[in-house]
Amino acid sequence: MKNIPNIIVSRLPVYLRALNHMQTQGQQTTSSQELGEFVSVSAAQIRKDLSQFGEFGKQGTGYSIAFLIKKLGEILKVDRVWDVAVIGMGDMGHALARYQGFTNRGFRVAMVFDNNPALIGKEVGGFVIQDAKTMLEAIRGAGIKIAMLTVPAAAAQEVADQIIEAGVKAILNYAPISLSVPAGVKLQYTDPAIGLQRMTYYLE
Amino acid sequence: MKNIPNIIVSRLPVYLRALNHMQTQGQQTTSSQELGEFVSVSAAQIRKDLSQFGEFGKQGTGYSIAFLIKKLGEILKVDRVWDVAVIGMGDMGHALARYQGFTNRGFRVAMVFDNNPALIGKEVGGFVIQDAKTMLEAIRGAGIKIAMLTVPAAAAQEVADQIIEAGVKAILNYAPISLSVPAGVKLQYTDPAIGLQRMTYYLE
Repeated sequence: MKNIPNIIVSRLPVYLRALNHMQTQGQQTTSSQELGEFVSVSAAQIRKDLSQFGEFGKQGTGYSIAFLIKKLGEILKVDRVWDVAVIGMGDMGHALARYQGFTNRGFRVAMVFDNNPALIGKEVGGFVIQDAKTMLEAIRGAGIKIAMLTVPAAAAQEVADQIIEAGVKAILNYAPISLSVPAGVKLQYTDPAIGLQRMTYYLE
Repeated sequence: MKNIPNIIVSRLPVYLRALNHMQTQGQQTTSSQELGEFVSVSAAQIRKDLSQFGEFGKQGTGYSIAFLIKKLGEILKVDRVWDVAVIGMGDMGHALARYQGFTNRGFRVAMVFDNNPALIGKEVGGFVIQDAKTMLEAIRGAGIKIAMLTVPAAAAQEVADQIIEAGVKAILNYAPISLSVPAGVKLQYTDPAIGLQRMTYYLE
């Protein structure tokens, strides 16, 4: 497979979410123009991005939404269900364990961990909070490749090192700190301050 | 001011976070090489991005971290403190109201809202949850320009319309749904499923 620029890959989930929304509204086809307006990307960029992966639409008739959802799901490998571990069961961990937005989008929370004795053994969103001491073995045993990290900044790098040792290949980091990960491990930041700082540039 | 591509602006907060981290570690200078490795961007890209805004480093001696933090803060307009409203006090709203990662990064939560009678009047993270019915007036009265939206998907567009009417110009959307906003309003999505879908493409 040819090497697709990271920036293109990063836009596909946004297209997919918009298409799912259109489908929910009963819509069956869309155009690069309409999709572009929906996600604030130019129609030309959308056509260019999608053309990296093949021919998805016909000139004049637009895209079949169901077909495009199927194809994007395959490309992004979310046409399956990935088990995800949540490490750190503070407020954000609780929110993630109970998050309703993973359904039909390729993920399910499979296990949750914390190192706080007051939390270990408690139930959140149908999960029993497991002792972080057992994390390495549990994640390795279950073959989990994806983790969401919501531990305090001071602990984040150490926990990241541990879960990578356990076999995790993709980390969504909520801790407000930059992490170092080895080549072959993907890292995404979901830091509300970053999201806000991306907009203040444009404010008066 | 010249028109800086959105994609460059979106990388600056990531550089800023990395620089703050280096400074916390007692470091005083860095190079585009080192910073690039830290944030998984090429050194050439970092030099190119920063050169959009002026001369920030000297050939051979690298960047002063304190100077670069100051400059990026000015560029991103986070050299001040923006008041932010949180709409929706479910798990995610609670997490945001108590989030420790805004300090010194340009933001403070100023007010929080929900429409659930069981939540209105309760205190979370030092804030009294206000009735969403009073949201429009309260946000307008306080001149708040930034909101974080953590309401259910079905309510998100209606709430977005209301806070935009109240004067909000930047929305960080946690609801798992695409929103339509008028020109001049900035929108960022912070959707964990999107963060995860940006990585699964690369997993085996």
